[in-house]
Amino acid sequence: MNTFNAIDRLVVLLAKLPGIGKKSAVRLAYHILNTDASYARVLSEQLACLHDSIKRCSECGSFTETDPCPICSDSGRDDSVICVVEKPQDVYVIEESREFNGKFHVLGGLIAPLDGVNPGDLSIGRLLSRVKRRKACEVILAVNPTLEGDTTTLYLQQILKEVGVEVSRLASGIPVGGDLEYIDRLTLSRSIRARVKM
Amino acid sequence: MNTFNAIDRLVVLLAKLPGIGKKSAVRLAYHILNTDASYARVLSEQLACLHDSIKRCSECGSFTETDPCPICSDSGRDDSVICVVEKPQDVYVIEESREFNGKFHVLGGLIAPLDGVNPGDLSIGRLLSRVKRRKACEVILAVNPTLEGDTTTLYLQQILKEVGVEVSRLASGIPVGGDLEYIDRLTLSRSIRARVKM
Repeated sequence: MNTFNAIDRLVVLLAKLPGIGKKSAVRLAYHILNTDASYARVLSEQLACLHDSIKRCSECGSFTETDPCPICSDSGRDDSVICVVEKPQDVYVIEESREFNGKFHVLGGLIAPLDGVNPGDLSIGRLLSRVKRRKACEVILAVNPTLEGDTTTLYLQQILKEVGVEVSRLASGIPVGGDLEYIDRLTLSRSIRARVKM
Repeated sequence: MNTFNAIDRLVVLLAKLPGIGKKSAVRLAYHILNTDASYARVLSEQLACLHDSIKRCSECGSFTETDPCPICSDSGRDDSVICVVEKPQDVYVIEESREFNGKFHVLGGLIAPLDGVNPGDLSIGRLLSRVKRRKACEVILAVNPTLEGDTTTLYLQQILKEVGVEVSRLASGIPVGGDLEYIDRLTLSRSIRARVKM
């Protein structure tokens, strides 16, 4: 195209999203254009109000429309178990599994000294005060089993032990449906060490 | 999540886009939320004005902001060659290749009697009048080599021959970088029949 029209501008914007290249962006833009205008309108409205309607929960640090968030203010959930995650979308993912009925705590990152992220940059102080205030009996460390995640897990484990709360971490091993042949060496050795008695 | 908040609503909308499943939609929604609010605002504005600012070109039938479209009104482009495509995004794709400097004609679909699409539903009459009016010397049929595409190509070829204009179609064969081992039988046999003398 010689001119830079409304479709091109939309393509440029969509191509900035993660996992969406130029071709996908073109496909999406034309799909939206070929779809009823009401879809584009509703999507536009949602995007316009997104940042205004979503804030951080003052209790757990997750994204929410109301403060405290629906999970923190839900009396039906177990106050004595706190699941520690890196970022708000991890709360979403764990909620989707429907396996956990306690409360959450969002760290806001992982300890990564090389990237300049130190324990003081994370909401660890707030986690400790929540653990004491709520008299939590277990803290589940649910961060990714990466270098930064493991560092953070180890750090939190030491600090939380001093407070006298039970600390656990998510099981690491071969994913369901996985294939031994394609599993990396570290995962395999970790799953052998953490083998389960039958 | 117990409640249906602004993030969930955005996820539901994004998951309606082609090639975007629930997981990708969640990832995109959180990415937008974590990105500066100005991105969401600009994207929202683009979506809001999209359907109002884009219309069909009365000459070629492609999407455009101005009528006639920049391609149809570009005097630097060859008026005597018309490239016939199925839909507006095909114009975009061919323009990206920078291989064609003539004009376009958007059919608005392909002949598919089983789906109730007959020649009368496509802009074939307008194509014929353009060919006569502009005294075009060549029409390139650039539709996908599918059942419907081949049917349409055959139909247009017969009609256009009567008008006395040269008709060509895109070469069909093994894509560049393709592997003989993985090419389907039909493409392979077509590329053998259409082999090029060296």
